[in-house]
Amino acid sequence: MADISTQPYKGARDFYPSDMRVQNYIFKVWRTVVERYGYEEYTAPMLELTDLYRAKTGEEIVNEQTYSFTDRGGREVTIRPEMTPSVARMVAAKQQELAYPLRWYSIVNNWRYERPQRGRVREFWQLNVDLLGVSGIEADAEIIRMADSIMRAFGAKDDMFIIRINNRKLTSLLMGEYLDLDVQKSHLLSKLLDRKAKMSESAFDAQAQSIVGEDIAKLNDLLNIKSIDELPANVVESGQVEELRQLFDTLKAAEVNVRFDLTLMRGFDYYTGVVFEVFDTNPENPRAIFGGGRYDELTEIFGATDVPAVGFAPGDVGTANFLETHDLLPKLSSSVKVYMAVISEAVVAEAQKLASALRKAGISVAVDIGGKKAGSQVKKADKDGIPFVVFVGEEEIKAGKFTLRELESGNEAKLEPKELIQHLQ
Amino acid sequence: MADISTQPYKGARDFYPSDMRVQNYIFKVWRTVVERYGYEEYTAPMLELTDLYRAKTGEEIVNEQTYSFTDRGGREVTIRPEMTPSVARMVAAKQQELAYPLRWYSIVNNWRYERPQRGRVREFWQLNVDLLGVSGIEADAEIIRMADSIMRAFGAKDDMFIIRINNRKLTSLLMGEYLDLDVQKSHLLSKLLDRKAKMSESAFDAQAQSIVGEDIAKLNDLLNIKSIDELPANVVESGQVEELRQLFDTLKAAEVNVRFDLTLMRGFDYYTGVVFEVFDTNPENPRAIFGGGRYDELTEIFGATDVPAVGFAPGDVGTANFLETHDLLPKLSSSVKVYMAVISEAVVAEAQKLASALRKAGISVAVDIGGKKAGSQVKKADKDGIPFVVFVGEEEIKAGKFTLRELESGNEAKLEPKELIQHLQ
Repeated sequence: MADISTQPYKGARDFYPSDMRVQNYIFKVWRTVVERYGYEEYTAPMLELTDLYRAKTGEEIVNEQTYSFTDRGGREVTIRPEMTPSVARMVAAKQQELAYPLRWYSIVNNWRYERPQRGRVREFWQLNVDLLGVSGIEADAEIIRMADSIMRAFGAKDDMFIIRINNRKLTSLLMGEYLDLDVQKSHLLSKLLDRKAKMSESAFDAQAQSIVGEDIAKLNDLLNIKSIDELPANVVESGQVEELRQLFDTLKAAEVNVRFDLTLMRGFDYYTGVVFEVFDTNPENPRAIFGGGRYDELTEIFGATDVPAVGFAPGDVGTANFLETHDLLPKLSSSVKVYMAVISEAVVAEAQKLASALRKAGISVAVDIGGKKAGSQVKKADKDGIPFVVFVGEEEIKAGKFTLRELESGNEAKLEPKELIQHLQ
Repeated sequence: MADISTQPYKGARDFYPSDMRVQNYIFKVWRTVVERYGYEEYTAPMLELTDLYRAKTGEEIVNEQTYSFTDRGGREVTIRPEMTPSVARMVAAKQQELAYPLRWYSIVNNWRYERPQRGRVREFWQLNVDLLGVSGIEADAEIIRMADSIMRAFGAKDDMFIIRINNRKLTSLLMGEYLDLDVQKSHLLSKLLDRKAKMSESAFDAQAQSIVGEDIAKLNDLLNIKSIDELPANVVESGQVEELRQLFDTLKAAEVNVRFDLTLMRGFDYYTGVVFEVFDTNPENPRAIFGGGRYDELTEIFGATDVPAVGFAPGDVGTANFLETHDLLPKLSSSVKVYMAVISEAVVAEAQKLASALRKAGISVAVDIGGKKAGSQVKKADKDGIPFVVFVGEEEIKAGKFTLRELESGNEAKLEPKELIQHLQ
């Protein structure tokens, strides 16, 4: 038989311990911030019935990008391409029992069949944060503040990112009442706006003209608007704009960098109100890092009404790209603190005893039981990023004192077990 | 359109925040123990090419229990039913670059298409712990000690579990040289022994007789052996038994409860040496909690030789069952420490400011922005298992003092923000 490939499945990644440290750093920052805001973790199965995504996830993902198949029992199932439909399902299942507002988060892997390229992989990890049961803008504001707090917790500064905000209801109003488009043309225009940043200006203009006809100048005027105050007068007087104004005021008071952006659409069909995007302002990497929005009607596909909801979902790939671009990734060391170099095979049992004592004191210790020379044991520790080595040989056992070496500085000290523990704690 | 079902996929589980607390408790204990032993986290994609499992995972799982399908690019893929083949693949891919011994762990979800029943679900979570690059029994001993440490860390006492140990090489020796069976009959007998605990005595005897023929008495004598010293004299003199004896001596010296069990097989085809099982000794729940063993040849399917390996993998379901049976699950409270009850909508902004100050001090705070009455805000906090409530109303803002209530005791104190933080830290 030919050897089996050692490569991971195309577009998916192996995480060796050194890669996993980066993932765990990102996950830890996410977790710390959202837990401070009072969010609790939940999770859902990685397989769902395909129907769950057909309703609202969006045609491109469902028709071209899902991992869908029929299980051994004849059920049509899909590997989760995103988490929001599962949250909505779980809330709908216990709508009456749950105490609102719900503040839920999860960190899960999602799968999409895409062409692998920079920033795009087939298996990606995402933090999902959702606030359910509150329809007021206080909820939108909390969600957007949390997105800002996550960026700050990673060390991002004011000039590194901006949060762009729009509102789907305002977009509908402008397309329907101001540009006088029917539902179908509105849908076409919003899909076109979603792709605008990736198109040439002339291609955009041509396609836009085919939708709005003579109103192309009116559309271009709209798209140049930089603040809600520049919106057409009759629109400014609508409730949508007033809500947006309150949202901007609340966020600016909390020192969150926000900007109105009428071209911001976000892909999912389920958004019903505020949508936002955290955008990298680096001219070399001008891209959305992540986004979110309000989806008040998603639970209705399960027959559950009146569950207003707003959330967002940063991914591991976009976050890692941002951290690398802005040189924000800290030096990450091993979760192992001490490597025990065993100099003579005769003392393995004694080394294990000492290791047990250190572990009881909460110190993580790996004992080298490979029977290699001391030098290569130290190299191994260094390669793994383990900060300390303790040497255990017959002489050390006899003297009851052990050499502790800090690898980075090279500093050494001869210590009794008690002192060793105190030093390492 | 008919409403979409709110139920999770058959045999898989939703984890609401209260369920997730139990999962997170189990994961945390696993993580803490294995990190103390110097293990570092890694992970691999949840989809692998189906070939990876065809070689060594075992026929029953591959033919009847995998979630396998063809992806949009025509590749035959399988959702991971277990993690060991992925570890072997990752190590084989970088065999020359890695510094041995490798101490790796992961906590992942696996999928198997089984009939859902108590203790058996289709999506289950598993800790995978592997020590690679050491062939000596020191490695087997470390792995088994870790299994014991995990049980102790969950609060298990001496009389609650025992670790049964066998060695595949010894089994081969007994079947081949002592019972004089050919390879095919040895395989049949080992599969039969693996099912023995689930069969009636007469059914086992009938099937055993069809394999070993007249040697049924000799087989039954073997199966009654309780210690390696009772093995046939010519077998006792073999190296296999000497290694097992060293292993038992090492483990007994470390106060690990172990027992020799010649009937212990473990299902996977890739095991090559020591196999073991942590067994619940409760007469009402006499079952294997988890197990593991040595698999020195698994990387050879990738063309990588000389990577001896030993590992084990406890699952969430077996662990939770054990904890429930022995009443070992602690009371788990919310990860949210403080619920901020906002008495008047006029002070939401002030409440948010106070919440920000608490968060900066590392305290997790959820602010009630639902506009409900104070009473129902307290009820919500209580239902979620949040230990403290802080009340914020116009009076409190004016006085600069806030009532902190501990929900379990009902104790209250009026505190300034600074005192509040000190009290909660």
